Amino acid sequence: MEKIAHYISLVNQELENFTKNKEPKNLYQPIDYAFKIGGKRIRPALLLLANDMFGGKTVQAMNAALAIEVFHNFTLLHDDIMDDAPLRRGKPTVFKKWNSNIAILSGDVMFVNAIQLLAKSDEKYLSEILTLFNKTAVEVCEGQQFDMDFETQENVSIDDYLKMIELKTAVLLAASMKIGAILADAKKDDAIHIYEFGRNLGIAFQLMDDILDLYGDPEKFGKQVGGDVIANKKTYLLLKAKELATGNLKNELEFCLNSTSLNKNMKVERVKTIFNSLNIKQIAVDEMNLFYNTAISHLDSIDVYEDKKKVFEDFAKKLMQREN
Amino acid sequence: MEKIAHYISLVNQELENFTKNKEPKNLYQPIDYAFKIGGKRIRPALLLLANDMFGGKTVQAMNAALAIEVFHNFTLLHDDIMDDAPLRRGKPTVFKKWNSNIAILSGDVMFVNAIQLLAKSDEKYLSEILTLFNKTAVEVCEGQQFDMDFETQENVSIDDYLKMIELKTAVLLAASMKIGAILADAKKDDAIHIYEFGRNLGIAFQLMDDILDLYGDPEKFGKQVGGDVIANKKTYLLLKAKELATGNLKNELEFCLNSTSLNKNMKVERVKTIFNSLNIKQIAVDEMNLFYNTAISHLDSIDVYEDKKKVFEDFAKKLMQREN
Repeated sequence: MEKIAHYISLVNQELENFTKNKEPKNLYQPIDYAFKIGGKRIRPALLLLANDMFGGKTVQAMNAALAIEVFHNFTLLHDDIMDDAPLRRGKPTVFKKWNSNIAILSGDVMFVNAIQLLAKSDEKYLSEILTLFNKTAVEVCEGQQFDMDFETQENVSIDDYLKMIELKTAVLLAASMKIGAILADAKKDDAIHIYEFGRNLGIAFQLMDDILDLYGDPEKFGKQVGGDVIANKKTYLLLKAKELATGNLKNELEFCLNSTSLNKNMKVERVKTIFNSLNIKQIAVDEMNLFYNTAISHLDSIDVYEDKKKVFEDFAKKLMQREN
Repeated sequence: MEKIAHYISLVNQELENFTKNKEPKNLYQPIDYAFKIGGKRIRPALLLLANDMFGGKTVQAMNAALAIEVFHNFTLLHDDIMDDAPLRRGKPTVFKKWNSNIAILSGDVMFVNAIQLLAKSDEKYLSEILTLFNKTAVEVCEGQQFDMDFETQENVSIDDYLKMIELKTAVLLAASMKIGAILADAKKDDAIHIYEFGRNLGIAFQLMDDILDLYGDPEKFGKQVGGDVIANKKTYLLLKAKELATGNLKNELEFCLNSTSLNKNMKVERVKTIFNSLNIKQIAVDEMNLFYNTAISHLDSIDVYEDKKKVFEDFAKKLMQREN
């Protein structure tokens, strides 16, 4: 994973002085803060890695990589307002530290900054990467809206849910890698394969998230186990259980979801028992593996030397073996 | 003004089906609503007019014109949240009709849509118009932040204020026309002149706004006369008065600004008396005319037949003769 670490450190260096001396301070300090509180920089690192796989030059892909990271952080600023989230990476969110007006406007300017960075790429590729970036940005907004809609929507199908996580999470991962490929003059087919690798891996990643919430090792998970269950969050697990439960199980599930008297631990316990009766964990793992294997088969199809792909395979494996 | 009316109607036709059948509905209905409640469509019309002046084809500039209008409406959606504005064009604002989360996200997607429209322009011009558009978008955000900062900032100079209205209002008008010029292969100097025409006219327009608030004909103004005075809004008039007032006048002005007992009409009357003693109206009119005349001199410098410029001159005159 050495190479990824190298790219992450390059990206962090570039972000260090991103807002340096810019005015008005109230617009740019929150942006600086958003970068300083950290982040895994996975997306720009994968963009640079994909670019390298196809023989591109890091220096020529760096602006696009930064564009992706700035865009991602813009979505976090706005999402945190919408989700009323007090903390991100253990620190107060921008809208809590300043206010929501500042978080809106700082987010807006970050989005413009993202386009500005992207536009610095070689003119030869500009139209193509801009089209992909814009399409992806629209999808991310749509994903966030679907996610918010689902909170109050009675019937959400598994297909709806998979579509939502694809839009909200997976397409940006996919587009990051494809942009890296385009900037390295990758063959069209290969660019499609790396996109599909990212898209499928992103969905698998999100399903893993749902599984870990309830079935993760409490010692390693770092969050309250069953947080999604307590919040009645419409995860893959819950939606699948609702689809499969009949008779008494269905009644028991409805009771757990609607009861206001049940204490949190009891609720998690009883819902878990229902899930176990329905074999939900295994179904979710199977679904996740389906996406994971599809991702890997796209990686396999890419026409470059195997050793170039290894870092992606290792990365995918690591994502699937995580415990938090 | 026939030509402007024609362009406005073309733009409105295009906006009619902008969000047609798009999902999720909660994301796209607010956008449709924002267009349906109207708007003067001045910016896209001026873009198309500038394009025509330099011999461009309307059909090739339409996407950029729409991009400007969509961008402008995106800023309105977010500004209305920040300003807690209940009404726009006599109708509930998006964040009041839905909620602020929806107004944030619908605004975000409008911004992406604006870039998408712009990116449909001929590849030959893409890099140049994108650079100008992005620079302008950043400036508009900065202008909005300065405007918000000024509300609580003790010392705001006339220069600060002029810079703020330039960023918040004038540069988008200027960029609209310059983009129209670029898409018509206008000469570099001419593109600069049309930009400066728009920038100076935009500042003059905003100063006119400040003057009309207090000195407009109440019969024709349509809003409460002195609304800015009542709200202690840091307009050109107030800032100039603060700069010039000394002795008793200074004390009287401070009293009016800080008093909580003064009724609205009395406050407007007394502040107006101070302004009159300081000749503020004339100073503001002179400043406005300075910008107006600079605008016209840039128009004069453009190297096209005079009859092509007439519509811009008429437009500028009309803006300066308005009474509301």
